[in-house]
Amino acid sequence: MSAGAEVNSERLWESLMAMAEVGRTPAGGVRRLALSDEDRLGRDLFVRWLREAGCTVRVDDLGNIYGRREGTDPRAAPVVFGSHLDTVPTGGRFDGVLGVLGALEAVRALNDAKIRTGNPLEVVSWTNEEGARFAPAMLASGVVCGRFTLEEAYAIRDPDGRTFGDELRRIGYCGESANRLRAASVYLELHIEQGPVLERLGAQIGIVGGVEGISWGWVEVTGRAAHAGPTPIVDRRDALVAAARIILAMRTLALEHEGLRATVGRLEIAPNTINVIAGSVRLTTDFRAQRTEVLETALRKLAEVCASVARDDAVEVSASEFWRSPPTPFDPAVIDAVAAAAASHGYTTHRLWAGAGHDAKYIADLYPAGMIFVPCRGGLSHNEAEWASKEDCARGAAVLLEAVERLAGPA
Amino acid sequence: MSAGAEVNSERLWESLMAMAEVGRTPAGGVRRLALSDEDRLGRDLFVRWLREAGCTVRVDDLGNIYGRREGTDPRAAPVVFGSHLDTVPTGGRFDGVLGVLGALEAVRALNDAKIRTGNPLEVVSWTNEEGARFAPAMLASGVVCGRFTLEEAYAIRDPDGRTFGDELRRIGYCGESANRLRAASVYLELHIEQGPVLERLGAQIGIVGGVEGISWGWVEVTGRAAHAGPTPIVDRRDALVAAARIILAMRTLALEHEGLRATVGRLEIAPNTINVIAGSVRLTTDFRAQRTEVLETALRKLAEVCASVARDDAVEVSASEFWRSPPTPFDPAVIDAVAAAAASHGYTTHRLWAGAGHDAKYIADLYPAGMIFVPCRGGLSHNEAEWASKEDCARGAAVLLEAVERLAGPA
Repeated sequence: MSAGAEVNSERLWESLMAMAEVGRTPAGGVRRLALSDEDRLGRDLFVRWLREAGCTVRVDDLGNIYGRREGTDPRAAPVVFGSHLDTVPTGGRFDGVLGVLGALEAVRALNDAKIRTGNPLEVVSWTNEEGARFAPAMLASGVVCGRFTLEEAYAIRDPDGRTFGDELRRIGYCGESANRLRAASVYLELHIEQGPVLERLGAQIGIVGGVEGISWGWVEVTGRAAHAGPTPIVDRRDALVAAARIILAMRTLALEHEGLRATVGRLEIAPNTINVIAGSVRLTTDFRAQRTEVLETALRKLAEVCASVARDDAVEVSASEFWRSPPTPFDPAVIDAVAAAAASHGYTTHRLWAGAGHDAKYIADLYPAGMIFVPCRGGLSHNEAEWASKEDCARGAAVLLEAVERLAGPA
Repeated sequence: MSAGAEVNSERLWESLMAMAEVGRTPAGGVRRLALSDEDRLGRDLFVRWLREAGCTVRVDDLGNIYGRREGTDPRAAPVVFGSHLDTVPTGGRFDGVLGVLGALEAVRALNDAKIRTGNPLEVVSWTNEEGARFAPAMLASGVVCGRFTLEEAYAIRDPDGRTFGDELRRIGYCGESANRLRAASVYLELHIEQGPVLERLGAQIGIVGGVEGISWGWVEVTGRAAHAGPTPIVDRRDALVAAARIILAMRTLALEHEGLRATVGRLEIAPNTINVIAGSVRLTTDFRAQRTEVLETALRKLAEVCASVARDDAVEVSASEFWRSPPTPFDPAVIDAVAAAAASHGYTTHRLWAGAGHDAKYIADLYPAGMIFVPCRGGLSHNEAEWASKEDCARGAAVLLEAVERLAGPA
């Protein structure tokens, strides 16, 4: 089907490496925080490339950038594809950027082959996907999809107290609300996996079935602070010992339930002193699964664990969920288009779900959506050592190009 | 033997409660940090009471206060007894104070009964025992015993940057180095237990065999930080899971080794974020035991635990000891004097070792030393709710008085 259009692997790689110079860190990573000066320079470069590729560029009131390539059907909604250009403070060269520049490369390849599509195409770069400077993550796609209001977004402050709204205006990327995404026939996003599964299985392309549901919570353990010297072991109500049991029980829970991941990533310990038995510990719980029932089971089992630890260790334990993001299955037709595109190239594939959030999760509320994953070395991301090979990047862009052609239809 | 001299329980209690007004907190605790304005007021009160009890007061170049009551033998070294008046930031009314005012009460009781002793007596209050404002703890007794130099002590800064030396001069308690303790026939210290053992056993007096040895160390766990979403459980190198195993193994170690206490009180986790698998954890280890061999065994077993966790959890683990305080057995003759004094009053007793540091530990390097413990409610100390009953305080002072009479000998 894409007999004519072919991704130029070298050109894609050169663009990725050129963008990686914007905010490059001494260790070879990238620091391009949302709405920073580096973000502005990256946007300027991207907009120039879009225009050079013949796209009409518009910017909305959240700073989202859209580059439009007209199709032959003037009434058809666009096929939209892209990702984000912002990074975490010590980020890598591929997370987000590959989806944006892979989409740009698809347009360039169509231009090279002089191929027109039925539906128009829109390459998009979403503002502040990482949420590293302005929490929460996926803020701009969230506003576009009605999860947050514009006023909420503008009022969010970075750690230095500067607001999203002020910084958006400062870097010159506050456009019109009329420019927001208002219609799409489908949305497609290419991304590095950010996990080790594809690499371990030797799969070249990940066909993403959806974005997993996430449950975030706190477990609060209250014991009794006491001097580590004169307090016999049997008299202790050690909140940290109880917390350790919960951390291990979380791991066991995940190992015993197919498709469940469970993580304790953060502890707050009081008083957190070498010679005082911990009086209280607050720990975070992060559960992820493809099905809501699995999350519910995990929360129920966690409550059982907490009750048992409270009994055995003479402490008080309470668990509470403070945020839930339901599982988001992607559109079967989009998934099929990705699978067919990968098959036509003869790439080895693996079907998996995204464990992390992506803009595609919010967009899937409004439009049929899907994602394509490529392997990244060691599953590493949000890290200066993040790495995807030139070949893997090109394979991802090739699948993106062909899936978009399939979904946009011929002229 | 003390037929004549008897502790006045009411007077002791009134003195304790009067001293508790100096730096009293709204919650009924005491904040009398070393060399603070509150410490100065407490010292002024104590010095007045010493003089009213007929003592000659001297202050040394560390602010240690000595109140001397002459004996009949002019060449004999004094029997020295006391403790400290400083508290932690939210301390109680008994920790330290009971030993100082219990000693004062013993002198008052001897005065009431017009009893002279053979050796002179010296009531002492040591500066900065807690180390809460100027670390380390037991600083002034440590200088007197040659553990630290005067210059080192003077240069130590509090969290606001003020030095020990400047603050000592500011409150007017920087005396002459010639006034330091230069000779003692014995040293005796009355203190609340700071643990729950006496209360649980129903023992009225703790006969202290010595101060336990302490080993402090770090265990460093290095795993791999990774996104909690896309990283399957089996691919993780979770430093916090490994740390949890070590925390529980420390508890097991203590339960399996008679006389050993083991505590993990502090964790430093990176990045300590809800959705990132911990990349590294640094945790403290605190071991206490009466015998050096038990400490050595504990450290050897900890190394085995670390090796096993490193293997099972695919992390790197290293344990290192950074501070050791050897066990300090008290003098048998002093212990016997305490036991005989308690027996002559018919008090129930229990023999135990001190798990926390006390000035008596340093003084024991130079002179025969011992301690007397009384129960405190729930084993609680370093806490505004710290509590010892009027009767327990009086029993402690009575044992102190009689032991001092036995050790100082008759006129």
